[in-house]
Amino acid sequence: MADLGALGEFGLIERIVARLGEAAARDILVPPGDDAAAWRHRGAVTVVTTDALVEGVHWRSRTGARGEPPTMTWADAGWRAIASNVSDIAAMGASPDFAVVSAVLGEHVDLEALDGLVEGMAAACLAHGVRIAGGDVDRGTETVLAVTLIGHAEGGTLLRRDTARLDDFIAVSGHPGSSAAGLALIEAGRGAEAGAHDLVAAHRRPRARVELGRAALDASLRCGIDVSDGLLQDLGHIAERSHIGIEIDAERLPLYPAAVALLGRERAVDLALGGGEAYELALAGPEERLRALSTAALPVTLIGRVVAAHPGEAWALDAYGRRYEPRSAGWDHFASPGDATG
Amino acid sequence: MADLGALGEFGLIERIVARLGEAAARDILVPPGDDAAAWRHRGAVTVVTTDALVEGVHWRSRTGARGEPPTMTWADAGWRAIASNVSDIAAMGASPDFAVVSAVLGEHVDLEALDGLVEGMAAACLAHGVRIAGGDVDRGTETVLAVTLIGHAEGGTLLRRDTARLDDFIAVSGHPGSSAAGLALIEAGRGAEAGAHDLVAAHRRPRARVELGRAALDASLRCGIDVSDGLLQDLGHIAERSHIGIEIDAERLPLYPAAVALLGRERAVDLALGGGEAYELALAGPEERLRALSTAALPVTLIGRVVAAHPGEAWALDAYGRRYEPRSAGWDHFASPGDATG
Repeated sequence: MADLGALGEFGLIERIVARLGEAAARDILVPPGDDAAAWRHRGAVTVVTTDALVEGVHWRSRTGARGEPPTMTWADAGWRAIASNVSDIAAMGASPDFAVVSAVLGEHVDLEALDGLVEGMAAACLAHGVRIAGGDVDRGTETVLAVTLIGHAEGGTLLRRDTARLDDFIAVSGHPGSSAAGLALIEAGRGAEAGAHDLVAAHRRPRARVELGRAALDASLRCGIDVSDGLLQDLGHIAERSHIGIEIDAERLPLYPAAVALLGRERAVDLALGGGEAYELALAGPEERLRALSTAALPVTLIGRVVAAHPGEAWALDAYGRRYEPRSAGWDHFASPGDATG
Repeated sequence: MADLGALGEFGLIERIVARLGEAAARDILVPPGDDAAAWRHRGAVTVVTTDALVEGVHWRSRTGARGEPPTMTWADAGWRAIASNVSDIAAMGASPDFAVVSAVLGEHVDLEALDGLVEGMAAACLAHGVRIAGGDVDRGTETVLAVTLIGHAEGGTLLRRDTARLDDFIAVSGHPGSSAAGLALIEAGRGAEAGAHDLVAAHRRPRARVELGRAALDASLRCGIDVSDGLLQDLGHIAERSHIGIEIDAERLPLYPAAVALLGRERAVDLALGGGEAYELALAGPEERLRALSTAALPVTLIGRVVAAHPGEAWALDAYGRRYEPRSAGWDHFASPGDATG
């Protein structure tokens, strides 16, 4: 698959959309390329996203071929399959309503594993105000959980990737990198260490930021994305679609203290910049509106600015104002071509 | 996976829905268990279905491990992934609008294969009045095309599985079994024989019956299903949900002449009763309304009746009124747990 890899994940998506020609919906309220697609029907705005979890790529519930430890239970995988899609709806400032699930069950999936998957999905649905409206079950060699989440937007205003403006500030919710730190600890066999619990939970049972997305819209913010590929890469999507540059201050990253304590500051910074699947929201807008969103339950931290320089690129700067290059680039789902829902 | 297999495909779905508890949407316009789910939002009715095509299970674009011939090109697989979902929307009498696609690309998928997939999807979208609003691309060991199709219903009346009434007649569109006959010829290396072309095309480029579904609703019909698992099995779904029995006359099946000529009458009957993925519509309702649907372009043939006997079961009867047991049971996607979208 060398030639697909050479295209890169977003080159691949662009190629697909280009080749779809007239079959791509370019004139809807939010066409392909944002966190979710959106269109109007009789005055109501429907918001839809789809995202698949692939066993062995996004998670392991069994010991890997080279002895790698399981990263989560089947129930956790079920939870994540729902939460990752809710996160895309949250990133639009929309409200999730219904999910449909296409599940391909690997040959090794037994009733206990299936019940776990369903239990985790049900728990995530209840936690996020979603219900499952239908689905499809097939067999295959590996397990794939393809979830489509359908929601709605009141009024029809949405948080988009292409609406950052010069001199906007950049903020992020929670503690980006927590999920990646949890995964790093699990992979290193350190998931049970003192202090690791919250990080491991951030990886296995992430909460999508639905209320924050709606609050951001209510506060007249218009630009946001969920941190699914890695903070720097996701801010890069905003930079590219908004035709502006973004600079964030690596010193200001709201690192989770346990991530620093257990993995060291440098690694924690790298995971905060490049680690994916945090499902926090990154927002762009006027400083005071961003600050007003912060609550005790979910801090929102200002980490950077929109700039005229290097349009289309998001840079992290170190304490001396030099460009900081994380050693690990954006989360690539162990080597995944990418996501272009919406 | 013995215990999953023992449950059977519909037992599995029932178990999943039961275990979803409050997370299953039971109070929407059409809850899980029909061809598609449907709900109202601000007076508009949204109809949603999801269906996955799994490489090696639903199709082969490469020679199989035991030398089995490819059953279709990548472009054909892309077409089918869209058409199978459009068919579920058609079976509700609804109109398809937008698709989102979660594609897991196997390691062997190169750019040419991917372009083929996309081209086939685009062609099916244009043929069925659908546009792609978004998607997600991942890598895996086998290719999975999970499509979700979202449509709408004018008025909010839908063709359902649970609305067959005693003394209704049963009709089917087109020539059920054509797709299965095409597949049988391909598998036997006979796909290029004289007369096989239309059958092979029925397998590789099936057309969903959107206009017929809408026409059925317009004609005040209320009960329909698409023939995806096999005619007898799909009529069994109507029998079960409507709490009635169904008897069809095997002699009246509208067999495609080439299927009889190339495979023999007995095999053609079996494939018409048990062969899946035909994407024809089976309808229940008053005789004259069903007859009025038939056109030169798409015949609709009366094949049976709703009866009070054997509620929950659809039977085929032979020329002597004896129950006819096809040698091949319902299409099982080479061994697939099943479908419960809606």
